[in-house]
Amino acid sequence: MHNLAAVETPAAVVDLDRVEANLARAQAYADAHRLRLRPHIKTHKLPRFARRQVALGAVGITCQKLGEAEVMADAGIDDILLTYNILGASKLQRLRNLAHRISLTVTADNVATVQGYASAFEGAEQPLTVLVECDTGAGRCGVQTPAELVQLAHAIETSPGLTFGGIMTYPPKRRVGETAQWLAEAVNALEGAGLPPATVTSGGTPDMWSAHLADPITEYRPGTYIYLDRMQVDYGVGSLDDCALTVLTTVVSTPTPDRAILDAGSKALTTDMLGQTGFGLIREYPDAVIGELSEEHGIVDVSRCATKPTIGERLRVVPNHACVVSNLFERVQVLAPDGSVEEVPVAARGRVV
Amino acid sequence: MHNLAAVETPAAVVDLDRVEANLARAQAYADAHRLRLRPHIKTHKLPRFARRQVALGAVGITCQKLGEAEVMADAGIDDILLTYNILGASKLQRLRNLAHRISLTVTADNVATVQGYASAFEGAEQPLTVLVECDTGAGRCGVQTPAELVQLAHAIETSPGLTFGGIMTYPPKRRVGETAQWLAEAVNALEGAGLPPATVTSGGTPDMWSAHLADPITEYRPGTYIYLDRMQVDYGVGSLDDCALTVLTTVVSTPTPDRAILDAGSKALTTDMLGQTGFGLIREYPDAVIGELSEEHGIVDVSRCATKPTIGERLRVVPNHACVVSNLFERVQVLAPDGSVEEVPVAARGRVV
Repeated sequence: MHNLAAVETPAAVVDLDRVEANLARAQAYADAHRLRLRPHIKTHKLPRFARRQVALGAVGITCQKLGEAEVMADAGIDDILLTYNILGASKLQRLRNLAHRISLTVTADNVATVQGYASAFEGAEQPLTVLVECDTGAGRCGVQTPAELVQLAHAIETSPGLTFGGIMTYPPKRRVGETAQWLAEAVNALEGAGLPPATVTSGGTPDMWSAHLADPITEYRPGTYIYLDRMQVDYGVGSLDDCALTVLTTVVSTPTPDRAILDAGSKALTTDMLGQTGFGLIREYPDAVIGELSEEHGIVDVSRCATKPTIGERLRVVPNHACVVSNLFERVQVLAPDGSVEEVPVAARGRVV
Repeated sequence: MHNLAAVETPAAVVDLDRVEANLARAQAYADAHRLRLRPHIKTHKLPRFARRQVALGAVGITCQKLGEAEVMADAGIDDILLTYNILGASKLQRLRNLAHRISLTVTADNVATVQGYASAFEGAEQPLTVLVECDTGAGRCGVQTPAELVQLAHAIETSPGLTFGGIMTYPPKRRVGETAQWLAEAVNALEGAGLPPATVTSGGTPDMWSAHLADPITEYRPGTYIYLDRMQVDYGVGSLDDCALTVLTTVVSTPTPDRAILDAGSKALTTDMLGQTGFGLIREYPDAVIGELSEEHGIVDVSRCATKPTIGERLRVVPNHACVVSNLFERVQVLAPDGSVEEVPVAARGRVV
């Protein structure tokens, strides 16, 4: 334990009270609407916060990487949804090993992936539950029509070692009604084919407070809600005062009266813009604009600041996108309300495979 | 040792023969023009390649992070230029420890930083050599005029524990003549003040083949030249066939005839665009466009491809910007000309402080 003044910069700092408030708010919403909450851990990648999410009422967690799921299983999380087409012999072997020790569900949007699962799980003690990923408008992965969904669900259900578990979608933002209609038709089609979906899972922090409006959804998978960021504030999910992750940085140079240089560049903040002005918001200087990043420098236009930052001053930057920032730091500094700081390894960081 | 077929994706792959050719070409150029070469290791972050650069004739290496320099010193590199204003008591203590075991030079562009160095090195066995960073037009760090340079050089030279070593600049791209003029005036001013600079060091891969035209330069610090990338190809530094770093990725979905999904997203390729079309170039499908990235997915428009990628196919993507990709992978796969692959930890990755 130490305090923030002792932390070398740049550093990722997590306000614990904000995390707790963000988690509690989401769980209360899910409970009120009888939605199962299955948080996506991509944002924090910390076993402690995954366990906390489950302790507060989450039914389990969501991972997108097998390596992240393995870390979380090691940390005692026993119910994981892996929302990814897993391909290749070595990953399928890892998948089978993982399914042996926790309750594991995966997704597929194509026959080749289903065949891989079937070959890996034929003869397994427990069948592997597979959800079909549906493209409800986001234009990423997913079957394109309810008819394709039924066909793939049937292929899963008739494969040895597999069982069809329902529908997964990563929905388009701000089109909840459209997503709901897609899913309702999909559920009807499945019921008509004798394959009623036990789970209809959707996700995304931007529309989390509207999740109850997309009627057939049984489960929701927000990720960023734990930390929030400038993008989510724009979506109205919370306010800047709810943003729990900041990058602590030091002013290392003020070459001109209108320019300050931070020791946080693209390797601390990333170049994700997401429609924002600048590469992050400096809490102490909201009128400053982080207009340019090189790898280790943030170049700040302070021309509109009434008072200006000075060399050595330490500032906290709210990132545009929290998840990608978490991915850059080996450790985060967890800041308690009493000002004490605990350095925590980001155990599931860098698990690219 | 294994081969590429056994590597799980996404993975960072380094073609060793291309690395060797890129290193040799740069060293031959530097030798021909009597420039000292001091490669920036930010691009590879690998002790083995730093040692190789020195073995080929580099006078030492450049680091931007104290943590990177510590890793490289541990690996036997004994001459390091740290091109950063180092601030704060704990970092200054680390700096002094590092200077005790290798030949270390640092930079400063302001008095506060110089004062920190002086307080840390007063009474040291060897004085710390400090270069003054000059802003020759890039608009990042650096003193703004030769007069400011002389003033700061004088402050360094008269500080206990410090010695003035010369000039460092990170120059603006494609403005070699302007940089040369700035530096020539700076050298004149220093000589007039009785502070002739032993070193005038500049850098940047984009203009590396013009380094000899910026006359007062004695030393050059390219980084990306070891791997190259799409941006450097655009600058004409080399061709796509010289690009040594690729991201090996698998096609995990083909939801529509015109869309393929890769398992390489922004956590493998980053969102750096740098004026390119798409987030990387697929070697096997140069007509495909990686038009969108989410964290774990690359969304590819394959509408202009005569033949189209299929699920399970493994592809290699030339990134827009190699350095930031290196920073995302814990390990790289070093591919030898005989097809064998060695997995190498990226020892200086994630050294943010």
